[in-house]
Amino acid sequence: MRQQTFHRLYEVIERYGFARYDGPVLEPVEVYEAKSGREIAERQLYSLQDRGGRRLALRPEMTPTAARMIAANANTLHFPVRWYSHPNCHRYERPQRGRVREHWQINVDVFGSDSHRCEIEIFELIHDMMGALRAPEDAWVLRVSDRGLLAGALTEIVGVPTDSVRDVFGIIDRWEKYPRDALGVEAGELGLDPASFRRLESVLDGGAEILDDLSPEVRRASPVASILGTGAADLFTFDPRIVRGLAYYTSTVFEVFDRHPANNRALFGGGRYSDLVAMFSDRKIPGIGFGFGDVTLFDFLDVHGLTPEPRPESDVTVIALDGALVDAACELARTLRAAGLRTTVPFEPRKLGKELTRAAGAGNRLAVIVGERELSTGEVLVRDLRTRDQQTVRITDVAHGVARALGAG
Amino acid sequence: MRQQTFHRLYEVIERYGFARYDGPVLEPVEVYEAKSGREIAERQLYSLQDRGGRRLALRPEMTPTAARMIAANANTLHFPVRWYSHPNCHRYERPQRGRVREHWQINVDVFGSDSHRCEIEIFELIHDMMGALRAPEDAWVLRVSDRGLLAGALTEIVGVPTDSVRDVFGIIDRWEKYPRDALGVEAGELGLDPASFRRLESVLDGGAEILDDLSPEVRRASPVASILGTGAADLFTFDPRIVRGLAYYTSTVFEVFDRHPANNRALFGGGRYSDLVAMFSDRKIPGIGFGFGDVTLFDFLDVHGLTPEPRPESDVTVIALDGALVDAACELARTLRAAGLRTTVPFEPRKLGKELTRAAGAGNRLAVIVGERELSTGEVLVRDLRTRDQQTVRITDVAHGVARALGAG
Repeated sequence: MRQQTFHRLYEVIERYGFARYDGPVLEPVEVYEAKSGREIAERQLYSLQDRGGRRLALRPEMTPTAARMIAANANTLHFPVRWYSHPNCHRYERPQRGRVREHWQINVDVFGSDSHRCEIEIFELIHDMMGALRAPEDAWVLRVSDRGLLAGALTEIVGVPTDSVRDVFGIIDRWEKYPRDALGVEAGELGLDPASFRRLESVLDGGAEILDDLSPEVRRASPVASILGTGAADLFTFDPRIVRGLAYYTSTVFEVFDRHPANNRALFGGGRYSDLVAMFSDRKIPGIGFGFGDVTLFDFLDVHGLTPEPRPESDVTVIALDGALVDAACELARTLRAAGLRTTVPFEPRKLGKELTRAAGAGNRLAVIVGERELSTGEVLVRDLRTRDQQTVRITDVAHGVARALGAG
Repeated sequence: MRQQTFHRLYEVIERYGFARYDGPVLEPVEVYEAKSGREIAERQLYSLQDRGGRRLALRPEMTPTAARMIAANANTLHFPVRWYSHPNCHRYERPQRGRVREHWQINVDVFGSDSHRCEIEIFELIHDMMGALRAPEDAWVLRVSDRGLLAGALTEIVGVPTDSVRDVFGIIDRWEKYPRDALGVEAGELGLDPASFRRLESVLDGGAEILDDLSPEVRRASPVASILGTGAADLFTFDPRIVRGLAYYTSTVFEVFDRHPANNRALFGGGRYSDLVAMFSDRKIPGIGFGFGDVTLFDFLDVHGLTPEPRPESDVTVIALDGALVDAACELARTLRAAGLRTTVPFEPRKLGKELTRAAGAGNRLAVIVGERELSTGEVLVRDLRTRDQQTVRITDVAHGVARALGAG
């Protein structure tokens, strides 16, 4: 079931020409301490020491690894490079001491272009991925902002000193989770007077209107500002409250937000980063991408009733009525598999009723029942495990008979 | 290319009803020290200490994790359980200090049955997997032995004391790699006199004939002995020289051996283990399985000329002849992707020649060229990057035109 869902997403991602890569599960801890942002580095990083005394971390996310690999191969790659991956990432869970939580995250990144067309392609890809999950368009919304625009609004409109911009981002990141007066207190501690805080509120509530009040320099530097006003603006809602947690995003930031009342939260997100590759090389290669984690993915599918049926163990089980017939059952299973049918066979004879219940419970559509009487005339029974209809099929025709019965269902 | 190969193998494995699972990348170090055998535990284990001082290891192999998961779920699982996985596993490489080598290994295991039919199913699966890799039957051989039979031969025929059996296994594991006289010296150190060593040689060179000289009890306990003499014996060659390195195998052991003179080595292997699950639970649940690593897999394909063509970045690239046409090119790419075609589009205009060379180098079959003159009459050029043939296609018909040109190639 999980694999099925993932494969649908891979198919969409590859339609955009993204090539799959893999990377190491351990990285030097510094890779994350500097760039992943406070939350990951301080609280959720699972760090370890190897026998040489080096401090390593189980990767909490894939983007720094991708950036390192891009840096290492920059001389032979043709940019723009479209890469995707599906790594296991890890978070340290402090409440249950010493436990590491493993999750899987589809990562998609474009490296080597500053063009706002990267943003458009990523946003279109997100729409196609959500479509592949059969999510209705009104089930979710793509909310997009730009840290450059937001920083401009903070300094030019709100009056935040440049030094404090990053701290105010921290407040904005909690904007929708904390009560407004608590945020006001936090803002006050950063030196924002009540009038500034009101201006901050109106910036964050103002949507795309804030762009009108920004200087042309700030607007021109923003890929998102280049898209607003074109047809591609229909792909998303501009929302200055989006800042995202990762420290390395430099301009565009975005998240897919679940609109379901029972799951009102970010499903996944990403952004543009200009300097991450420069950590590992002299070259400055911009990137933009996102990571889609399995936990929120399957929560989303669940709450919207989109979870696909679990994939059955197989299409057909071959059941021998007694021990002397198990080899014949195995032989039939061989024939069915050779015809491309997904087939299981118990290795030991058990009671027919028990075996049929088990086979149906594991999702099999059909059972082929091998009994002595039928076998003596070159036949077996093919039983539909849902309708309990049974038909006699010649052994020489068993693959066709089973395929026919599966097709009829 | 790698993913393509893996998917072919998944498809075959799922045809046998194996369900995919995942497990954690870190396990307590004790899981491997006891059971994986000397080589892994002492030399190749990448062990670390977490912040709570616990000793953990990056999994060097998947079977102990699978056994732990089977033990944890034994009460709700219906046996036999067929599981497969494709984890990243890790080895510590001492020569390059502190480096960990990550490799990927397809793991296939059947839990919960003692029947020799497990062996037959696993051997048939191996034949089908090798077939899916397009490997000719004479390119490889499945060599099978049984540690129980071998231990019987050592004690009953060679005269090895029971205590020394495991040490003699160590000698046998090096049988084909070391000169015979060096092995003789080793055997002497274990107390085997020259006459015993000659008996050992004749056991190991004797193939299936050794079974005739073994006691019925030893033969009866062996799943492999039950298969010899049946039609399923055609699936493999019985070879007493196979013992495998992992400590936990209890009876059947097997390996797929590459017959190519330039790559005369084991491609992968596995075996039956009766006690591994008991490490994690009160229940004794037997298992049998194997792990197929990517490094030897692709070496094998390479040496036999079976490596599939690398998958092209996409089927078609849409190239704009100048900057003003890039948006039109992106729009066309959208149309092509919506029609299910794998499509890339450069975000920035570059010289046509350069872009065509890059597109062909990345494996694209076609380029759609967007020029001002053609665009003004509602047309684009579709160019075959191999033959360099070009045709004019109406924009309203571009998806069909491209699909047609791809189909014609």
